[in-house]
Amino acid sequence: MSKELVFGHQSPDTDAIVAAKAFSYLQNKLGYDTEAVALGEPNSETAFVLNYFDEPTPRIIKTAKNEVDSVMLVDHNEFQQSVSDIKDLTITHVVDHHRISNFQTDQPLYYRAEPVGCCSTIIVKMFDENKVEIPAQLAGLMLSAIISDTLLLKSPTTTEEDKIAVKTLAEIADIDYEKYGIEMLKAGTNVSAKSDQELIDQDAKSFTMGGKSVRIDQINVVEFSEIDKRQDDIKKAMKAEAADKGYDLFLVLITNVLNSDSKMIVVGEPASAVEKAFNSKLANDTLSLPGVVSRKKQVVPPLNDALD
Amino acid sequence: MSKELVFGHQSPDTDAIVAAKAFSYLQNKLGYDTEAVALGEPNSETAFVLNYFDEPTPRIIKTAKNEVDSVMLVDHNEFQQSVSDIKDLTITHVVDHHRISNFQTDQPLYYRAEPVGCCSTIIVKMFDENKVEIPAQLAGLMLSAIISDTLLLKSPTTTEEDKIAVKTLAEIADIDYEKYGIEMLKAGTNVSAKSDQELIDQDAKSFTMGGKSVRIDQINVVEFSEIDKRQDDIKKAMKAEAADKGYDLFLVLITNVLNSDSKMIVVGEPASAVEKAFNSKLANDTLSLPGVVSRKKQVVPPLNDALD
Repeated sequence: MSKELVFGHQSPDTDAIVAAKAFSYLQNKLGYDTEAVALGEPNSETAFVLNYFDEPTPRIIKTAKNEVDSVMLVDHNEFQQSVSDIKDLTITHVVDHHRISNFQTDQPLYYRAEPVGCCSTIIVKMFDENKVEIPAQLAGLMLSAIISDTLLLKSPTTTEEDKIAVKTLAEIADIDYEKYGIEMLKAGTNVSAKSDQELIDQDAKSFTMGGKSVRIDQINVVEFSEIDKRQDDIKKAMKAEAADKGYDLFLVLITNVLNSDSKMIVVGEPASAVEKAFNSKLANDTLSLPGVVSRKKQVVPPLNDALD
Repeated sequence: MSKELVFGHQSPDTDAIVAAKAFSYLQNKLGYDTEAVALGEPNSETAFVLNYFDEPTPRIIKTAKNEVDSVMLVDHNEFQQSVSDIKDLTITHVVDHHRISNFQTDQPLYYRAEPVGCCSTIIVKMFDENKVEIPAQLAGLMLSAIISDTLLLKSPTTTEEDKIAVKTLAEIADIDYEKYGIEMLKAGTNVSAKSDQELIDQDAKSFTMGGKSVRIDQINVVEFSEIDKRQDDIKKAMKAEAADKGYDLFLVLITNVLNSDSKMIVVGEPASAVEKAFNSKLANDTLSLPGVVSRKKQVVPPLNDALD
């Protein structure tokens, strides 16, 4: 059997890197010859995780067809999020927890998707189904991925399966996951090392809602004061970017990962629709959003309704 | 939780009907409220199976949105093979053993695909993973589906997983699967009851190969003589159909399901490419194809190469 590469999505987060490592380990135990690689540099949270568990950073690739004919995808399926030459490759396996879109194959394949909070949660189940033991170090990595994707099991994307997986993995890794999780999430915030432009750009996604072009970024912090003191500069950068790219609305969600609250800086119009979406009044271009942590589940849907 | 419908593809075969029944049973055990339905009348083989195990024929639907918001698909995923209003429905689960194509969702879902010989084989694994017991009657149905899809484990699409599932199911159903399988496959052939037009149409698929329009039908028999004595009339019907629909080549694969051999009637041009594809000479417009049973694996690829 010829070698295959295993990788997560572009701009990898902790789950994208870790799920590739975990699935590659499992598949090698099942008789495949695979290598986990990445489609980009690990972010600061993932770098902390790899360092903590003394795991090497995966090799970063730009294309795959120059090395292999077949690949396995984790934590994504949409071709525009995958390796640049994905259409020239045979996809033999996918493990994912997202919708399926812009994906197709010529041949039957292994595809395993479940609507859970983290791709690594599914892989934990697959170790169990295949009766393969999870080594302690790998358990620590997968535990980190679930903590990252679910913000310590507090995000509304969290399912019972994620909670069970965290408990199992914490036992195998012999780790106090709440204490470790806070340390890890803190390491991932690292706001002070980033420029205003990096902050408003790093995790931004574009949407069209009610005919308006809406840009929504998310910044994780451990204290709101980290952003508060830079708010005027960040707003200036947001306005310049909105003018340059033609966004009607530019929203930056600032999420305190320790207590699961958010604030939102709002630039552009109609600002009144944003107030309506969250039933809250703007003060100094900022909304308070207690209990909000998920852009996908708690920001996009009400905003979409208010603008439509 | 509101009710969901579970169904296989249009023009259902035994696996499409049985996998829907089996997956619906499993999901109901797991707490869902589902009903197995079908997108067409059972064929003669499936009718034999349902009668043998005293199982009711599933209700046949044309659309689903008038009854439910959400559905579960088995044994298919491509929208053109599914219920006519599939795009208006939320797909929550898919279990399948085909390639993924012309399929997409707005939301994360459960998707389970494996490249095995039969969809019911995957469902047998899911019963085990979820620790749900398979009732004897349902085991008999799933056993029939695997025998049907793999021609008694002789088709090259057969995997080790299919063989293991057949063994497990035969034990639960307490059936001599080889003896029963031959009886079931015989019941499915039923050539004498069909007109020439029905025979050349019932399982025909169209392909484009090397710029040529190629039509390939497959007829299962228990003795070649069933077709031999009607060969002139069948060829006449093939020629008329090819002229009418503009097929360059019309091929009818006649498969003896008892000894896993085939013959092929060839109408149209380039007939020499067909001879080349199978390294065999035409005699009376007919090729002998010993050991060939799978259109997908043993007919389409060599023909594609010869015509390209």
